[in-house]
Amino acid sequence: MPLGEFDLIAKYFSRPARRSPLGVGDDCALLAPAPGMQLAVTSDLLVEGRHFLSSVEPARLGHKALAVNLSDLAACGARPLAFTLALAMPRVDEAFLEGFARGLYALADAFDVDLVGGDTTAGPLAIGITAFGEVPTGQALLRSGARAGDDIWVSHPPGGGLGDARLALEMFRGRVPVGAGFDRLRLAMECPQPRVALGVALRGVATSAIDLSDGLAGDLGHVLERSAVGATVDVDALPTGPVLAAMPQALRRECTVSGGDDYELLFTAPPAARDAVRVAAAGAGVAVTRIGAIDAGPGLRWVDAAGAPVTAHFAAFDHFAEAG
Amino acid sequence: MPLGEFDLIAKYFSRPARRSPLGVGDDCALLAPAPGMQLAVTSDLLVEGRHFLSSVEPARLGHKALAVNLSDLAACGARPLAFTLALAMPRVDEAFLEGFARGLYALADAFDVDLVGGDTTAGPLAIGITAFGEVPTGQALLRSGARAGDDIWVSHPPGGGLGDARLALEMFRGRVPVGAGFDRLRLAMECPQPRVALGVALRGVATSAIDLSDGLAGDLGHVLERSAVGATVDVDALPTGPVLAAMPQALRRECTVSGGDDYELLFTAPPAARDAVRVAAAGAGVAVTRIGAIDAGPGLRWVDAAGAPVTAHFAAFDHFAEAG
Repeated sequence: MPLGEFDLIAKYFSRPARRSPLGVGDDCALLAPAPGMQLAVTSDLLVEGRHFLSSVEPARLGHKALAVNLSDLAACGARPLAFTLALAMPRVDEAFLEGFARGLYALADAFDVDLVGGDTTAGPLAIGITAFGEVPTGQALLRSGARAGDDIWVSHPPGGGLGDARLALEMFRGRVPVGAGFDRLRLAMECPQPRVALGVALRGVATSAIDLSDGLAGDLGHVLERSAVGATVDVDALPTGPVLAAMPQALRRECTVSGGDDYELLFTAPPAARDAVRVAAAGAGVAVTRIGAIDAGPGLRWVDAAGAPVTAHFAAFDHFAEAG
Repeated sequence: MPLGEFDLIAKYFSRPARRSPLGVGDDCALLAPAPGMQLAVTSDLLVEGRHFLSSVEPARLGHKALAVNLSDLAACGARPLAFTLALAMPRVDEAFLEGFARGLYALADAFDVDLVGGDTTAGPLAIGITAFGEVPTGQALLRSGARAGDDIWVSHPPGGGLGDARLALEMFRGRVPVGAGFDRLRLAMECPQPRVALGVALRGVATSAIDLSDGLAGDLGHVLERSAVGATVDVDALPTGPVLAAMPQALRRECTVSGGDDYELLFTAPPAARDAVRVAAAGAGVAVTRIGAIDAGPGLRWVDAAGAPVTAHFAAFDHFAEAG
């Protein structure tokens, strides 16, 4: 007999909550932020063909679905507490569920977060996660805090950079030939690492932060708009991993500037905080690179290493505009 | 030029948060439960053809998507605070969005809840809402609190009953001819009224509660399992509205017992609390009917008005088992 909706939830998605007063199994979960803490809340919806390819391993999909939400918490400087999962699947596929749950829980365990509730239903494959974290009142890193003169920083893997996820996508699409290093690029696309430790360490250091999900150009644009400032960014300073570094300049710039799916932190901090930024990054085990500065006047200016303007058009990745 | 993802969010789904420290527009929203309060959290995912018909008016869909989540908060005795919205749509359809947002905000305003964040993307139509409420620590109404000897109650509209949403669905399916009263039945299906005031008033009165989303049989089953008790329910005591009351007995029982989509509260309370239950219901402007009693032994027994066993098979509505 096929398993029904309730059995599925029980089999794959109910484990006792360890950090929350009440987890899966009632009409609601109960969360209790510690005194002096605010609750940070973020939701992401992942749709097949749009946010992931049908070729992805279920365990990596489980990882990514949670990772993109933890990345939003990181960008707020919040420590993750718990999440809910809404899952629509065309049919009950236990092999898929087993892998998906394994990848999901591996990341959840790594960050000590509880799955506290959710909903499963039949439908086209879609995964909605809402994640909760806590941050001391008044210390959340917002998009609105960038000030003229601030440095602009990005995080990245030590020895790696931005744009690898986009390069992997271009290889899947056949626009760029698959070559050496593809597995590493694919891992960047399918298994992003949320920069939670960095986000927490940047409380009181960074003036603003956002995570790179839609590409540097678009995401920095959000910070500039919210902060009512402009910026100058050196496209040649953008960190790249070894595979992308060997690619033609135009492709390299496209992948790093408007790639999307990096899930690194883009943040601003005053020049006086450069040592504090480096200490925070070292403690979090990630690299950080200074890529530009915030300007008082509006607008986003791209320059090369020599300071000359770069005029190529860099667009934000838009999940509607790129509809297939 | 078509509107992109960011413009859409701004146009239809960003209003200043009134009750939350930070609403739409950053990586996370920030919530701050009052001292002594726990945060109740619930997620629901609605998929076209499964949870709503493509013929539904967008405004009613916006209403229902939020209503089913507020209903879960009500079943916990939580007062709604805020919600996030994850929306996948095949294409940017402004007429749909305008109607959807109008229905959504009308209900949000009626319960003074903030939309604090979310995500929109292209994909098959799906709506994921996660809603937040607050409840004093230790006072949440859980499924696990039913005790032998407790009365079993259901809420319903004054002059109405259970099963109207299911009867409307059977009319849409063509199994039951559309007749007088169809508009009222359709309203029950498309515009359920979350019993928030009743849930809050039942704090300290009810021993357990659940909202009727999958049908009485299945939902009562959850309470019995969680509470490790059994129950006897009088199928002839189940309240019905005038249209369903005129239907054949078998259809009436099917719609009331395993209908689904009622979004009324099913709750238990000791017989000594009958007056308190009636006071709570009167204050909330809803009717309540006593339909049976909790037994110490396991199992769910259906009887008729004469106390004779009713042996018809009543299944829970399962969003996978009824896959088309």
